[in-house]
Amino acid sequence: MKDIQVGIIGFGTVGKGLAYALLEQQERLRQKTGITFALKTVADIAITELPAEFAGVTLTARAADIFADPEIDIVVELIGGMEPAKSFLLAAIDAGKHVVTANKALLSVHGGEIFRAAAAKNVEVGFEASVGGGIPVIKALKEGLVANRINFIEGIMNGTANYILSQMTDRGTPFAEVLAEAQQLGYAEADPTYDVEGIDTAHKLAILMTLAYGKNVRLEHITVEGISSIEPIDIRFAEKFGFRIKLLAISRNHGDSFEARVHPTMVPKGHMLATVNGAFNGIQFQGDTVGDVMLYGRGAGMMPTGSAVCADVVDIGRNISCGSVNRVPALAFLPEHIGEPTITPMRHLVCPYYFRVTALDQPGVLAMITGIFGKYGISIQSMMQDGQDSGEPVYIVFRTHNAEEDAVVKAIAEIDGLPVCSAPTVKIRILNPE
Amino acid sequence: MKDIQVGIIGFGTVGKGLAYALLEQQERLRQKTGITFALKTVADIAITELPAEFAGVTLTARAADIFADPEIDIVVELIGGMEPAKSFLLAAIDAGKHVVTANKALLSVHGGEIFRAAAAKNVEVGFEASVGGGIPVIKALKEGLVANRINFIEGIMNGTANYILSQMTDRGTPFAEVLAEAQQLGYAEADPTYDVEGIDTAHKLAILMTLAYGKNVRLEHITVEGISSIEPIDIRFAEKFGFRIKLLAISRNHGDSFEARVHPTMVPKGHMLATVNGAFNGIQFQGDTVGDVMLYGRGAGMMPTGSAVCADVVDIGRNISCGSVNRVPALAFLPEHIGEPTITPMRHLVCPYYFRVTALDQPGVLAMITGIFGKYGISIQSMMQDGQDSGEPVYIVFRTHNAEEDAVVKAIAEIDGLPVCSAPTVKIRILNPE
Repeated sequence: MKDIQVGIIGFGTVGKGLAYALLEQQERLRQKTGITFALKTVADIAITELPAEFAGVTLTARAADIFADPEIDIVVELIGGMEPAKSFLLAAIDAGKHVVTANKALLSVHGGEIFRAAAAKNVEVGFEASVGGGIPVIKALKEGLVANRINFIEGIMNGTANYILSQMTDRGTPFAEVLAEAQQLGYAEADPTYDVEGIDTAHKLAILMTLAYGKNVRLEHITVEGISSIEPIDIRFAEKFGFRIKLLAISRNHGDSFEARVHPTMVPKGHMLATVNGAFNGIQFQGDTVGDVMLYGRGAGMMPTGSAVCADVVDIGRNISCGSVNRVPALAFLPEHIGEPTITPMRHLVCPYYFRVTALDQPGVLAMITGIFGKYGISIQSMMQDGQDSGEPVYIVFRTHNAEEDAVVKAIAEIDGLPVCSAPTVKIRILNPE
Repeated sequence: MKDIQVGIIGFGTVGKGLAYALLEQQERLRQKTGITFALKTVADIAITELPAEFAGVTLTARAADIFADPEIDIVVELIGGMEPAKSFLLAAIDAGKHVVTANKALLSVHGGEIFRAAAAKNVEVGFEASVGGGIPVIKALKEGLVANRINFIEGIMNGTANYILSQMTDRGTPFAEVLAEAQQLGYAEADPTYDVEGIDTAHKLAILMTLAYGKNVRLEHITVEGISSIEPIDIRFAEKFGFRIKLLAISRNHGDSFEARVHPTMVPKGHMLATVNGAFNGIQFQGDTVGDVMLYGRGAGMMPTGSAVCADVVDIGRNISCGSVNRVPALAFLPEHIGEPTITPMRHLVCPYYFRVTALDQPGVLAMITGIFGKYGISIQSMMQDGQDSGEPVYIVFRTHNAEEDAVVKAIAEIDGLPVCSAPTVKIRILNPE
């Protein structure tokens, strides 16, 4: 019976999750694969001993001990961030090890270099855990939906941002207050920028677009707006229009170009993504053959992410055992069929919009505002006014039919220049109807 | 560049779907696999020519022509039913062909024989399309969630039944009327028994349980109740209690035994499965490592099912090309680790219940009924009465806390024996809270 020896770099949340998964599932994995998956070495600079369950496992502070060990087949990088994660991955590949990582930030910026190095050494790169935590979304896209042109990707890919928006929606609490609570509960990091400003979601979208389209999509291709400026008032108006506000990653395949955007989005309440609440993720694909498919589950956490990392280890272990390494190309398409993407400029984006205009409650104001929309060809579907006493600023909210971002930006600039408008207009995009 | 030649038996809805998928996706599949997948032969006794797009494809009325063709690598059986599908699959396997099927009825009854024959010949059996149409649920269970003990399976696995229940819910229309409409629209078969009586759902549950637990679960193990006796009045009461009625397949893993049941179930409105409407399927797993995962998509139809069948063909093609046939065991576990299941008897089932009692509106009736519940240890959570004039039969509905099926059956028999009860009590199980 073949043994596969695993080395883990980084014994933080996910590293522990993988270690426990390998331990607890060892007999089940043996019954499914005929292979014994064994954790041999953990490298971590911050700990001095491993939990008692891992009595036979070597602990080292030097990642190089793992690369130098000829018995180790698979190296799992779980320290996150750019360096030294990148150098460790490249060193492991250079030493002929197969590698697994959950590092979406690294892959969405330096993926090209890492995948080229792995191809040159004919080793595998597993990254199931980089998107959607424990949800097997990478495998679904690369294998289950192999016979599809992907028409679009739409998803909630960051549990922290979704938790914060869900709490704001359910309780009417402002962003800053919910964020502070989430930080206390350990649901948000001390520096929450990546999560709440949409950057983490963009990392994940870059990876999914690469796999879906066979294009080298990187973080720099994606337009990113976060949720820190969302106010409870907009959530309440969204409710009245029949929407929930979600931080979505969206990419549409226009054939000659691809949309690539992450921003707060109004989602119709009947849509499956509107029902993905709390720390959960939901990722939807539309394929030309399969139609709509959605995958839902925990997008983060020790054991869910450990489940995905372990699935990669098993996949690679099966390939080592069968002599079928790189049976499925790392990036879904063979390297020679992967090109550079053409990204649809944001100014050409067409979708319905929500606007909240803050204006003095005076006769003729609505006519001025709607006149500007009309001038830029923006057609209003419905309007609501939060009535107050005359003379005070009021909110006038609009829901548009499909409009072009370029026209929207110009119209808002003109509206915000009106003397009666006392605060910048808030703009939130609405999910395109299918 | 390796070619994989495919033969299809049965050019009905799914057969056509696969043929078009292979044609339309040929270049994309080549870019992803380096393999050219080509449809060589179609066997069908009901047609005399293929559509013009398939000019180079051979049409035959004899399936044996496909088995006898040494150039054909993979045989796809898409005629459905027991015979001759079973004989064709066994003949193909005997001829050393890999096989793919969407035939859940056959697999859930004769799977053992088919998988043993395939193992003896070292050929693969693909059946992704047998559950959940185009949703890659089999692959997710066998590979993506490999590092999990599956704690439970809960799912909406029949689009016809779900369409009918959704229509009954949205419009308040009785079952027979919606069924007749669905038949006219082509959403339901002329003989809808398999779909509406839960048998098709049970076929699929048997397959998922086999993969999840490593047990030979067959149709005979599953307790099945359909939706034909669901009345609009129960859907309205469900609404008042905060539930939607869905036809669910449910299996819980109790370690020493497994629940295996298909029946109409009241699902809390906030639950993801309550939002799966129309012809869609939603299948949820809970794994000990990953937590809750749900997959959602079209559970039937020409192209969605074609997508899943094509994914199997590609998977097998990759294994042929890499020399890694049976890299993943057909039934998730190695054959020597698959045993016979112990099924939890239905009388030991514990869940909350909904009852609708039809009784004369007389003083003391409620006390008699609740006295019987009390006698059998059934604790009532809430009660509603559809008030009418005294002397006429009224509906008294109850929602219980967890109760045992055995006690429930006895209590209902006793209640239905009361002279004041004028119609049999309706019993609908409520989804166990997590």
